[in-house]
Amino acid sequence: MEFPLKKIARVAGGKVIGNDSIIISGINSLDEAGPGDICFFADRRYKESLTKTKASAVIVPEKNDLFKGPQVVVSDPSLAYARVASLLAPPVPRYPGISERALVHEKSRIGKNVSIYPMVYIGKEAVIGDEVTLFPGVFVGDRVKIGKRTLIYANVSILQDCVIGNDVIIHAGTVIGGDGFGFAREGSVPVKIPQIGIVQIDDEVEIGSNNCIDRAALGRTWIKRRVKTDNLVQVGHNVVIGENTVIVAQAGISGSVHVGSDVVIGGQVGIIDHLEIGDRAMIGSQSGVAKSVSPGEVVSGYPAMPHRLFLRTSGLIMRLPQLNDRLRHLERRLEELEKKLQKE
Amino acid sequence: MEFPLKKIARVAGGKVIGNDSIIISGINSLDEAGPGDICFFADRRYKESLTKTKASAVIVPEKNDLFKGPQVVVSDPSLAYARVASLLAPPVPRYPGISERALVHEKSRIGKNVSIYPMVYIGKEAVIGDEVTLFPGVFVGDRVKIGKRTLIYANVSILQDCVIGNDVIIHAGTVIGGDGFGFAREGSVPVKIPQIGIVQIDDEVEIGSNNCIDRAALGRTWIKRRVKTDNLVQVGHNVVIGENTVIVAQAGISGSVHVGSDVVIGGQVGIIDHLEIGDRAMIGSQSGVAKSVSPGEVVSGYPAMPHRLFLRTSGLIMRLPQLNDRLRHLERRLEELEKKLQKE
Amino acid sequence: MEFPLKKIARVAGGKVIGNDSIIISGINSLDEAGPGDICFFADRRYKESLTKTKASAVIVPEKNDLFKGPQVVVSDPSLAYARVASLLAPPVPRYPGISERALVHEKSRIGKNVSIYPMVYIGKEAVIGDEVTLFPGVFVGDRVKIGKRTLIYANVSILQDCVIGNDVIIHAGTVIGGDGFGFAREGSVPVKIPQIGIVQIDDEVEIGSNNCIDRAALGRTWIKRRVKTDNLVQVGHNVVIGENTVIVAQAGISGSVHVGSDVVIGGQVGIIDHLEIGDRAMIGSQSGVAKSVSPGEVVSGYPAMPHRLFLRTSGLIMRLPQLNDRLRHLERRLEELEKKLQKE
Repeated sequence: MEFPLKKIARVAGGKVIGNDSIIISGINSLDEAGPGDICFFADRRYKESLTKTKASAVIVPEKNDLFKGPQVVVSDPSLAYARVASLLAPPVPRYPGISERALVHEKSRIGKNVSIYPMVYIGKEAVIGDEVTLFPGVFVGDRVKIGKRTLIYANVSILQDCVIGNDVIIHAGTVIGGDGFGFAREGSVPVKIPQIGIVQIDDEVEIGSNNCIDRAALGRTWIKRRVKTDNLVQVGHNVVIGENTVIVAQAGISGSVHVGSDVVIGGQVGIIDHLEIGDRAMIGSQSGVAKSVSPGEVVSGYPAMPHRLFLRTSGLIMRLPQLNDRLRHLERRLEELEKKLQKE
Repeated sequence: MEFPLKKIARVAGGKVIGNDSIIISGINSLDEAGPGDICFFADRRYKESLTKTKASAVIVPEKNDLFKGPQVVVSDPSLAYARVASLLAPPVPRYPGISERALVHEKSRIGKNVSIYPMVYIGKEAVIGDEVTLFPGVFVGDRVKIGKRTLIYANVSILQDCVIGNDVIIHAGTVIGGDGFGFAREGSVPVKIPQIGIVQIDDEVEIGSNNCIDRAALGRTWIKRRVKTDNLVQVGHNVVIGENTVIVAQAGISGSVHVGSDVVIGGQVGIIDHLEIGDRAMIGSQSGVAKSVSPGEVVSGYPAMPHRLFLRTSGLIMRLPQLNDRLRHLERRLEELEKKLQKE
Repeated sequence: MEFPLKKIARVAGGKVIGNDSIIISGINSLDEAGPGDICFFADRRYKESLTKTKASAVIVPEKNDLFKGPQVVVSDPSLAYARVASLLAPPVPRYPGISERALVHEKSRIGKNVSIYPMVYIGKEAVIGDEVTLFPGVFVGDRVKIGKRTLIYANVSILQDCVIGNDVIIHAGTVIGGDGFGFAREGSVPVKIPQIGIVQIDDEVEIGSNNCIDRAALGRTWIKRRVKTDNLVQVGHNVVIGENTVIVAQAGISGSVHVGSDVVIGGQVGIIDHLEIGDRAMIGSQSGVAKSVSPGEVVSGYPAMPHRLFLRTSGLIMRLPQLNDRLRHLERRLEELEKKLQKE
């Protein structure tokens, strides 16, 4: 696809300095760009690359004399980049129509203009919305509902009765609606508690690769609008995750945790069951969260503590050998003093 | 399915207070239950819900006047719930027979009354027991043996020669029998050590979604009876896990670790290779286990230590800034004393 | 397969003590070996097993009188074992040719002597090298290139445009080329940054089961020659991993990290984005790496610190209760001294 720079600038919400009718056909990094490409410059560490780039235009936070061609000046380069890249990115490859090598249950309901690759399975009474794309190896269980324009990559498993919204993206290998991990005990023998609930995923959610989002014991595990998860994330049964919340790779959220809106959960974080994580909270990477977190709170560490305290304690942990030496030194000096005073 | 309350009470091992012939057709949470449903009440925090529920009956640890309908009084509400939910849960959807769109090797042996969905692959000389269910995308390698009534969800891969018992459940996306991670070194070049052993999974085991259980270098990786693993668990080559042991999500067990029976391994725990974890040990979430753990021991932390010590050290870590201040204060006071004494 | 011991010795790079024409047909552990098997003995803890083994021959670092049969003496038993096991290991089962139940796009290019199992999908303009093996459920996206002799296990997803080298092994359930995790913000709403780059995997790499290796935002995520990853590893967008580097299970490497050659990254390690990990660095299990690591440096801990310091601080953390007691004791003694001096 090709666009004049003035169209790009409009999408980016910026204004052009220089010739706004040159044609842009791609987006690339400063180092690898060629003629027709637009680039993005925001980090001064890449000044050298800006000087040398062969790109036809750049998106910048302010006019930059190191680049001689036309520039699009924007207030938020990162957001402008997201917008422009969406315009120029190649589209996701779609299978034309429903493959004969897919297995679509006769009692399912399939929308218009869908793309169903070979080796997809769609179960009884499943409902697939218009313009949905299902890649090879996708398993859609009985009575699952999938909204419009949703995109599900290869080898994803969505188990019976789960509900997926509109404009959702689910990356490859993810499992939606596996049984929650619940066992009663009879003596030492674990006895399975059937997991009868579902997973509900709302509109515009994006779920990474090889995630596991368990169905509820009763009721639903609920991923609200615009939540984004990275890869290998674990979400236990009956968890609720609020709008716009972002969860980084390999984090694990135990059963019945309620996470608020606009929360950021770092990579490899663990949250124990039944806690509340307030709106706009931030949890640093690898933290072990053992108590509820208040709205707006920033925590880190194992166990998680206020982030400022974490920074101080982390520094002090590395100085524990010195602390110990100082303590020993004090003990010796004090002993001497005591002896001295006893003699007097 | 529908049952009179007296039948439910018998399954729950409890006794009915009130009308024991009302008909129960479902199980639900207090808040979402309607007529015909039975609920479970054990946690006093949900008193409000108990007062308002529209359920027809409740399972309780002792008679509770907040609920006006019939009650089933049991000694262990959690176990009673597991039993009753099993009775009332909808059955797992089964494909009737062997799909023509599955690929079953002519030299495999398939039991009676199996449910083999489309897009299943069963290799040469594999043996599938009676009443087994294999969901779409399941790969069963050559010479794999699967016992009776075992249930394997979508997109699970079971590699050649592995042995799965009776009444096993394996959730979606899991890999059984991938190569163990073993390399020799020739200078700095890693040289693969072929992994020639198998994985053996005994009866009544349940394995979560997207687990990886590696085949042994030689011999077997062995998951014993009634072990339960949560999602995204890693089990290295030649690991042995004893009966009834429970492993929470994202835990990782390195090669050749021997885990005893009735052990609980928390979420995101890491255990380094060749250790022994004794029977009935408990390992707290996110612990890093670098030494063997004795039978019955409870450990936590990174590195793992006795749980009581962990609680004390965790508290003290958060107070390190104060400890440091106290130390500095002592140093100053001591210095003053020393000066004073020198002058005298 | 069967070989005379002298051939085995040649492969092992060792010399035979005893009869070098006996026939070896398998490799096994000391305890489970029978006639025709060769075993490996290097760890003195298994002396008992060496005495009792029924193996026909053993590989040893030096002549050992506990074993009466012929011995192959080698300088590096671990490497010798890898070599001999490769010779004796049963080959990976291969489908003969291209299954009719696979879906191979007419505009793809398929090499000679490939093994393409049923239920494989190969997209438009994909290129598959000679002697490649693709197990059931493998998804190969449009324009993907796969080199010669590469082996891809069941249910692996390789997304469009990615490039895989020669002699690569990818274990089951892994996802190559899922979108990197990149979002701009418009107010509190996360806005997807399209991920336009690819993943490039060089020759002789081995990737474990259920890994996630994300495509670059722009350019490439690059896994260089002979890198080995264990299971459930996360590699973010634009990461570069140098030759021979080994990454243990459940480690996570955030976006744009550059890892050098010959690095060892332990299990469950987390590395935050944009760091440099120098050649030959070693990172202990579960470490949280928040700063770049110099070549040859050995770090551990959360946050990661020099390994020796980590060992000292870990010990001191466990002794924090005593440190606190000593501090309190000092405070009391000092107070007494001060009082005493005041009175004087």
